[in-house]
Amino acid sequence: MGDPASVAFRRARREDLRALLELLNDAKMGNIPEHLEDPLPRVYEDAFAVIDADRNQLLLVGEVEGRIVASLQLTFIPGIASRGAWRAQVETVRVARDLRGQGIGEPMMRYVIGLARERGCDRMQLTTNKARDDAQRFYRRLGFVASHEGMKLWLR
Amino acid sequence: MGDPASVAFRRARREDLRALLELLNDAKMGNIPEHLEDPLPRVYEDAFAVIDADRNQLLLVGEVEGRIVASLQLTFIPGIASRGAWRAQVETVRVARDLRGQGIGEPMMRYVIGLARERGCDRMQLTTNKARDDAQRFYRRLGFVASHEGMKLWLR
Repeated sequence: MGDPASVAFRRARREDLRALLELLNDAKMGNIPEHLEDPLPRVYEDAFAVIDADRNQLLLVGEVEGRIVASLQLTFIPGIASRGAWRAQVETVRVARDLRGQGIGEPMMRYVIGLARERGCDRMQLTTNKARDDAQRFYRRLGFVASHEGMKLWLR
Repeated sequence: MGDPASVAFRRARREDLRALLELLNDAKMGNIPEHLEDPLPRVYEDAFAVIDADRNQLLLVGEVEGRIVASLQLTFIPGIASRGAWRAQVETVRVARDLRGQGIGEPMMRYVIGLARERGCDRMQLTTNKARDDAQRFYRRLGFVASHEGMKLWLR
């Protein structure tokens, strides 16, 4: 296993899909595990294609010596308020369990903050589970402010 | 002024843009007011066009006897997790100041919850400022759970 400091970030490719789903399972946060039969269920291929085709979506992976060790999804959301300002939203931030606390999350977030600035977004936003104190501290260190309640309504 | 109970919801049209921006100013929440010169600054027309052209965006208005009295923006976000589940996100919920507490917000939210179910989303999500106790109560009544911190990073 290489040096986590050598992590490189890039857009996910279709051939990363299984590794991405394994990362979701490895790092799962109380969610139902993904089912990783071979071949992968078609729903995943379809979901990947939808995300990949949308210029307002970026599924990002962090790679160390060919291993996918981190990922997140960035969504650019247009709006009319604040003179048509765009928001950058971060979802599904994951770092491989064995590599937590080794400085992978911070460069990943700084990378997408840079992308959001390039696209002219006026803010970045995310929600993080209230039980995850460590995650809140992490985002605060990056300058995020917990000004809002993150409210969820389950539909199924 | 007609009966708020007669509010009708529909996709915003370009000719609603000034009324929508006036609603944002009327209901503003500590934000910088929108500048409503005549003609409207081009940035608003451009932002509206981007939203209107994207099938994953819905700028919704509530209308009572020809007056735009409420609005919100619904964003459908694709994902790979949870077998490719979609999220429905609500932003920029506004009700005209003189019509608050008259039962316009609830049917508007129920309307978009219905749309999110039709699109097969597994959850609806939004953030609401922690200072707005009334808004939190409102969303809790609809079944939302404040399970997450809503974190924001200002980029300019």
